[in-house]
Amino acid sequence: MKNFMDKDFLLQTKTAQVLYHDYAENQPIFDYHCHLDPKEIANNIRFENISAVWLGNRTFGDHYKWRQMRTNGFTEQEDDPWIKFNSWAKTLEKLLGNPLYHWTHLELQRYFGITEPLCGGNARSIYDRCNKILAEDPNFDVFGIFKKFNVYAVGTTDDPADSLEYHLAIKGKSPAKVLPSFRPDKAMNIDAQGFAPYIEKLAKVSGVKIESAEDVLKALEKRLDFFIEAGCRASDHALVDAPYAPAPIARVNEIFSLVMNGGEISAEEAEIYRFYIMTGLGRAYAKRGVAMQLHFAAIRNNNSAKFKALGADTGYDAVSNSVNAAKLAKFLDSMEADGLLPKTILYSLNPNDYYVLGTLMGCFQGDIPGKIQLGSAWWFCDHRDGMEQQIKTLGNLGTLTRFIGMLTDSRSFLSYPRHEYFRRILCNILGTWAEEGEIPADMKMLGQVVSDISFNNAKNYFEG
Amino acid sequence: MKNFMDKDFLLQTKTAQVLYHDYAENQPIFDYHCHLDPKEIANNIRFENISAVWLGNRTFGDHYKWRQMRTNGFTEQEDDPWIKFNSWAKTLEKLLGNPLYHWTHLELQRYFGITEPLCGGNARSIYDRCNKILAEDPNFDVFGIFKKFNVYAVGTTDDPADSLEYHLAIKGKSPAKVLPSFRPDKAMNIDAQGFAPYIEKLAKVSGVKIESAEDVLKALEKRLDFFIEAGCRASDHALVDAPYAPAPIARVNEIFSLVMNGGEISAEEAEIYRFYIMTGLGRAYAKRGVAMQLHFAAIRNNNSAKFKALGADTGYDAVSNSVNAAKLAKFLDSMEADGLLPKTILYSLNPNDYYVLGTLMGCFQGDIPGKIQLGSAWWFCDHRDGMEQQIKTLGNLGTLTRFIGMLTDSRSFLSYPRHEYFRRILCNILGTWAEEGEIPADMKMLGQVVSDISFNNAKNYFEG
Amino acid sequence: MKNFMDKDFLLQTKTAQVLYHDYAENQPIFDYHCHLDPKEIANNIRFENISAVWLGNRTFGDHYKWRQMRTNGFTEQEDDPWIKFNSWAKTLEKLLGNPLYHWTHLELQRYFGITEPLCGGNARSIYDRCNKILAEDPNFDVFGIFKKFNVYAVGTTDDPADSLEYHLAIKGKSPAKVLPSFRPDKAMNIDAQGFAPYIEKLAKVSGVKIESAEDVLKALEKRLDFFIEAGCRASDHALVDAPYAPAPIARVNEIFSLVMNGGEISAEEAEIYRFYIMTGLGRAYAKRGVAMQLHFAAIRNNNSAKFKALGADTGYDAVSNSVNAAKLAKFLDSMEADGLLPKTILYSLNPNDYYVLGTLMGCFQGDIPGKIQLGSAWWFCDHRDGMEQQIKTLGNLGTLTRFIGMLTDSRSFLSYPRHEYFRRILCNILGTWAEEGEIPADMKMLGQVVSDISFNNAKNYFEG
Repeated sequence: MKNFMDKDFLLQTKTAQVLYHDYAENQPIFDYHCHLDPKEIANNIRFENISAVWLGNRTFGDHYKWRQMRTNGFTEQEDDPWIKFNSWAKTLEKLLGNPLYHWTHLELQRYFGITEPLCGGNARSIYDRCNKILAEDPNFDVFGIFKKFNVYAVGTTDDPADSLEYHLAIKGKSPAKVLPSFRPDKAMNIDAQGFAPYIEKLAKVSGVKIESAEDVLKALEKRLDFFIEAGCRASDHALVDAPYAPAPIARVNEIFSLVMNGGEISAEEAEIYRFYIMTGLGRAYAKRGVAMQLHFAAIRNNNSAKFKALGADTGYDAVSNSVNAAKLAKFLDSMEADGLLPKTILYSLNPNDYYVLGTLMGCFQGDIPGKIQLGSAWWFCDHRDGMEQQIKTLGNLGTLTRFIGMLTDSRSFLSYPRHEYFRRILCNILGTWAEEGEIPADMKMLGQVVSDISFNNAKNYFEG
Repeated sequence: MKNFMDKDFLLQTKTAQVLYHDYAENQPIFDYHCHLDPKEIANNIRFENISAVWLGNRTFGDHYKWRQMRTNGFTEQEDDPWIKFNSWAKTLEKLLGNPLYHWTHLELQRYFGITEPLCGGNARSIYDRCNKILAEDPNFDVFGIFKKFNVYAVGTTDDPADSLEYHLAIKGKSPAKVLPSFRPDKAMNIDAQGFAPYIEKLAKVSGVKIESAEDVLKALEKRLDFFIEAGCRASDHALVDAPYAPAPIARVNEIFSLVMNGGEISAEEAEIYRFYIMTGLGRAYAKRGVAMQLHFAAIRNNNSAKFKALGADTGYDAVSNSVNAAKLAKFLDSMEADGLLPKTILYSLNPNDYYVLGTLMGCFQGDIPGKIQLGSAWWFCDHRDGMEQQIKTLGNLGTLTRFIGMLTDSRSFLSYPRHEYFRRILCNILGTWAEEGEIPADMKMLGQVVSDISFNNAKNYFEG
Repeated sequence: MKNFMDKDFLLQTKTAQVLYHDYAENQPIFDYHCHLDPKEIANNIRFENISAVWLGNRTFGDHYKWRQMRTNGFTEQEDDPWIKFNSWAKTLEKLLGNPLYHWTHLELQRYFGITEPLCGGNARSIYDRCNKILAEDPNFDVFGIFKKFNVYAVGTTDDPADSLEYHLAIKGKSPAKVLPSFRPDKAMNIDAQGFAPYIEKLAKVSGVKIESAEDVLKALEKRLDFFIEAGCRASDHALVDAPYAPAPIARVNEIFSLVMNGGEISAEEAEIYRFYIMTGLGRAYAKRGVAMQLHFAAIRNNNSAKFKALGADTGYDAVSNSVNAAKLAKFLDSMEADGLLPKTILYSLNPNDYYVLGTLMGCFQGDIPGKIQLGSAWWFCDHRDGMEQQIKTLGNLGTLTRFIGMLTDSRSFLSYPRHEYFRRILCNILGTWAEEGEIPADMKMLGQVVSDISFNNAKNYFEG
């Protein structure tokens, strides 16, 4: 029997252990998709207490944890840091089989040196020890964490209208590169509340007078160039499904004008606009070598009462049905037909989509190795079984060794052990294959594969 | 090599074996969803012969087995009990990898003490031994079985118009509680044959004059109260998909009247009615603390010739496509928005739905721990791989330790070893995790988890 | 640690090893679905060089390999055989986890006696050795390969308008039977380019004057009888989804005439025609004992620029969304209702469909054991994980021991080790179950199962 989450956690064979400890463990981290706050990085903040850093509060905090606390009957305890921590500890002891169980204990081990399983019984002791370290350890600030975890770069998520003031301020100060990512969802969602005011803001920030859908694209391209100057290497889009609705530009502009003048549009008309902007941006990314991240199949804010009370991103989202394969194919082909399909990363929140995505990507490869990527197991899929499924499916359908690997997708500075988690799972798969005689037990070759997927591939993909 | 289905069947580690034998094996059974006939319980019946109890006949019997007999070319042998048994034995020996193979042998072992694998070669001998026991064992009746398997309660499936006479007659006699479940499918299926006569029957039984959809709801609520008096703790609904079609009550009543007057309605109109009744009942359940079971994604009676010849539930059903995630979200939110979403158990016959269901449920948790449940692997999913998938997916997405666990969904008094089957699989998963260092090897804590999922959680959920 | 792909490759237990080596390894091969060129068989061709046989060129070659070469950045190297081979070798070393990695090494081992892993470093040496064998080995021709791999029969894929001249010429010469399969996709796809000229060709070849949809069916039936005389035992259909659109025959003929006169039809009208022809053919198959293969859920030619440049079947296809369960049920029931559902094999390229297919088939079984089959893991699913999923799902839902097993679906004479690959995976599953005590460790019984699924079942199914 192995000890609980010891140094060979998740590493079931000798080969896996060697691969992890000799090749993966010390690779730098390129966390190319996260939701860190650039202001907090620029200010190199320290952390108030373990409740603040782990839980925050119900309207802004770790919605993974709040969701589980509610599932376990803790619904309102958000004020007192200790009560909140205690609720979390009592929730955690119920979470056997959930990734939060592993993530939490990896964080306790790596950040705080605490190795016992957190539960209601030792919650107070662990609470006090964590807070002592947070208060006293001189290296427990953002830059200290970046150094400790060998973070090479992080990719934040930013609106095109953002000034990027903090990104600019960070330069030369942070031990890790802090790269903005271009996320123009607000300019895409023509059927969402607040679209018209947003367009006005975009016009102002970009200096482009926006009177048509074409102008929206011009303004976005201008901002994209500004982002690239600030280090941007990737864009990011949240889509339930891929849009495919080609129409003459006059029709697109008409739809845009209608909305800007307060009119209502149909779902079909919204898709025409989205398809136009989305493919226009795709071509702009292609010309500039910027990667396009597409996140599919989330349905959000499903609990309307809680949405009114707490707002978005508070733990009321879910997995949607599969992407429409034919639409996605035609959407990608629209750009490819012009030779302007950018580097593209296809994520779905529904793992049933992996076969569709993993085979469609093969229809659009070329130019550079691994140009089209099957995105890392995302959000609700981001656990041991989910990562194994994503890794093996990619292996079966595409070229696993070209995979750009893990990202945290996190708001928290305490999430870097998720890279470790991923690397252990990866090494375990490769190690098992080698021990079973399914691949050569050539440690140099396998070590290179592990290093590539842990770090080199991402670096080359975004910076190469 | 392990012996065939011995005491450590499915228990691959020492820890799994201890968890099963020390904590799971002797837990009582709360079989909260089955199709036992309350009359047979009330009469504490004995069983004619092994063919009758295992196979019945093609129009009323174990459709799992008849389906497999047909697949193996035995189509018409339903009269002579021995010929029928022999066909089943010859079928069974072909069913390696099928859950019937395990269920059948568990039943032979636990009910009849027969440990050799049934096949064509020993069919006669086993047939005779079983029949001898059925004839001679004084405890081989319903109550004897309830005692032997430590059955705490069973939840039957009953129409709102049912008199529940047998449930009332059973009280104080049966060693197990026999709880009616409220299954108002006939009152929901406005587009099915026989709707109008059913409504008349419901009116009569309930004493409510039914002239509108609102009256249907009133009548159902009255029956629900009667059911609750008789011990009902759960309702049950068979739905291909969740309805979501809000409309003014006048429109709903209009649709109802149209049908009652012999008119035809569209699929959209039927959904409006179903949505109204279904959400109305949901709120009624919430007010009374009754759990709502929703069974999705079955398509039934696919072979029209056999349906004409044999009727429903004879082995011609199949898995349907995935549930509509957005509709299900809005359906649940409709009740939640009023604070009247009941305890809800979401089942799908299509395991591709587990990610949708397992994340949507997280959007509606609260009040009591584990309020919204991912239903146990159901019907065609009710095998080792299916149960593992359901258990692990629930663990990854929700709180496994709150799971209310297994049910038989069976018409047969010989199905209780399916609880054993489930418990072995559960203990094996937890035991493997513990031995791999993924969870603490704290036997007291793990034993509690096993006891909870085997029995306590269901008891608390339905009776707490 | 096991050696790389040695004699016990994929066989993880002693029982699995015995099952494979004693029962599976020497079974003949019935490769009932492939894309071999009958002309090449009739001419008993030899192979130019290893690049020609493995890669061909971008417009006609192994599209699995070209797709992966593009993914790894090799896009244009198609002229010089050595450069092409070298690109493939450098691609292959990146394909850990992909079935091509195993298939390629099995081919090197079984055809060329080469056991080291192919990579960029040894590409020249292996290239030269392979070419020497291809040039010098007197048995390295089609018939030699058939003998070496104990090929009992192959089922080619042929258009109804084909003269089958090579099939007729082969008779009595080839050591393996070469059976034509009836694939009338061109007569079904009324909405595809070239439909009208194809119908004219069909009329000419069949000698049936075609003036209506009914005449199309007559002509096809006549060709089917001709095919059967030439040894045909199976048909084959490529469908995105099952058609279900019953209409009066006058309406079907009207649609047919419209298209033949240059008119345009809607998607619904095309489905009416397809449903009529497809069910008509199904009944014709049933009357003649010919099996019907239905291949679902592929979307093809997704990259329009490459389709223009290279044509179809060049590596730009993908997995589509799930089949429509209700339509498929009604489609099958349409034939079953007349007692004329033929032996049917249901394949889907989307493994999410296995539960739908694996349960629907159970609704239509009867007559002969295993009449309706869940098709072998197909194309993108044709790897270790995919085969295990197909085998286990079939076991869980149906009767695995009746499975007709593996096919290559290949254009290449070097693909026979894929049967070995499948048999190893099958034996490993059964061996694991036996060692775990889940099925009896009765080697004679298990050996029979292995022999049946490897060969006997297919032989009985197609020839019995």
